[in-house]
Amino acid sequence: MIIALAGGVGGARLAHGLARALPPGELTVVVNTGDDFVHLGLHICPDPDTVLYTLSELADPERGWGLKGETFNCMEALGRLGGETWFALGDRDLATHIERTRRLAAGEPLSAITADFAARLGIAHAIVPMSDDPIRTIVHTSEGILPFQDYFVRLHCAPEVKSLTFEGAEAASPSPGLCAVMKSQDLSGVIICPSNPFLSIDPILAVPGIRPWLQGRNVPCIAISPLIGGKAVKGPAAKIMAELKLDATPRAIAQHYQGLIDGLVIDEADTANAFGECLVTNTLMSDVADRERLAREALAYIERLRPA
Amino acid sequence: MIIALAGGVGGARLAHGLARALPPGELTVVVNTGDDFVHLGLHICPDPDTVLYTLSELADPERGWGLKGETFNCMEALGRLGGETWFALGDRDLATHIERTRRLAAGEPLSAITADFAARLGIAHAIVPMSDDPIRTIVHTSEGILPFQDYFVRLHCAPEVKSLTFEGAEAASPSPGLCAVMKSQDLSGVIICPSNPFLSIDPILAVPGIRPWLQGRNVPCIAISPLIGGKAVKGPAAKIMAELKLDATPRAIAQHYQGLIDGLVIDEADTANAFGECLVTNTLMSDVADRERLAREALAYIERLRPA
Repeated sequence: MIIALAGGVGGARLAHGLARALPPGELTVVVNTGDDFVHLGLHICPDPDTVLYTLSELADPERGWGLKGETFNCMEALGRLGGETWFALGDRDLATHIERTRRLAAGEPLSAITADFAARLGIAHAIVPMSDDPIRTIVHTSEGILPFQDYFVRLHCAPEVKSLTFEGAEAASPSPGLCAVMKSQDLSGVIICPSNPFLSIDPILAVPGIRPWLQGRNVPCIAISPLIGGKAVKGPAAKIMAELKLDATPRAIAQHYQGLIDGLVIDEADTANAFGECLVTNTLMSDVADRERLAREALAYIERLRPA
Repeated sequence: MIIALAGGVGGARLAHGLARALPPGELTVVVNTGDDFVHLGLHICPDPDTVLYTLSELADPERGWGLKGETFNCMEALGRLGGETWFALGDRDLATHIERTRRLAAGEPLSAITADFAARLGIAHAIVPMSDDPIRTIVHTSEGILPFQDYFVRLHCAPEVKSLTFEGAEAASPSPGLCAVMKSQDLSGVIICPSNPFLSIDPILAVPGIRPWLQGRNVPCIAISPLIGGKAVKGPAAKIMAELKLDATPRAIAQHYQGLIDGLVIDEADTANAFGECLVTNTLMSDVADRERLAREALAYIERLRPA
């Protein structure tokens, strides 16, 4: 059993590669829920949905978010009625939010709903939210304290990030599925996906019990750097690193995960800045074949790092 | 100023004719909200929406409900996730329900939201819900007591109707817009649209104050029979009349509205069964020209019935 910690698009793509490389049931994808928010009365879970859509091969391959062949007729009509349209929800995507909101209101935990959605979409591996308790990423910026989606979508990551906090994390518990796999005798490795370390992975590590468990684990843990040539493939990772006075290099990523990982997978473009225990390879995931190749290389790297 | 009492498709079509025949601001359409219900967490108002869509000329001309050119991608995706799809909500239509639900939750009254939607859709007349208080039509049938939409949509009106009650009506008040126009010195007539008397008009008459006001009014009131040749153009009016041991004739309609109307508009196909004060004409509204013609004939009939 492999655990993958994942956030948005990059994380979902590697998780998809792992899902293809591993036999059914041997992967648990633990997903960031710090980006979740209630909008238009709907409970929206951007990162879990990106993982659901990517692993079911329903995701839009270009945009990275949402469903392929999606329409936006509801949003267009909402605009005509004077509603808020800055967060674009596709017509098919809306079904996910409507049904999740209904089931949450009926008392079902987020992880049970997510597991059911995954099964209905034909996904053979476990997708578990980091927690069933509400945790909200708050971005402290040059323009004030912002809820995550205001920073990320409404303001297009323009404000300068000073720090991040995870509201509700202290009182939260890991989700039941995560608890089970953390204790599993079948666990053979942990992979931190090439997601934004600050926005996507840190919220997972903020859930009480997860960081100490990672520090004390007896199986290898590796991270895949989200940087290629000192830049993020997508998203604001490099911009945020600069704002936090960090170099956008493998060294900074390795230091960020210090004590949590045994090795770091970095891109060939960053060879000159390799730092510590590294696997250097092509980390760009342009297509499904790339995802699966990188996943197989990461799994082989874990095997090499396993204590004899 | 003319008041039109309206329910679903037939009522909306005559209201549309009246809207075209009258100068802007001289029509108030009072709409049944007894069909309203909460479904998938959304506050759905079928009759007010049919009136909004019909008067804005956005309604689907064939189906009678919903928007023209509508897509149902959300419903299809909802089915894939195991959600309830028996009540078909179009993608554009969903925007109405999402925005209304959000504004109701924020504390706005239904009538203010409806007025705003009407203005945004370019409607120059007032559309007012019969009440801002929740009133729910309950259908007592051979198969038990059913919420309206279970009877109407889920069971396709198949159960035999024994009686109807309007839950919440006793505690309800007419909406502020209706109260204002009931007291208006400019009121020149009332038209009961060719809506189902039992399902669409009776809930309006059940709101405290409306029936006594109609009984005591000093302007003419007419009804347009929803029957053509003893059958309803659409919907279960004739079926329900049979189940309630009423003949599907102008006499039964006139008796149903006894004390409330000064005259009844009936179709040429029912000439043989004309009863009391009647205007006989073609009441089928196949296109927009038909709606406007029937509206103008109804307005002229009101003038003829006005006391000298």
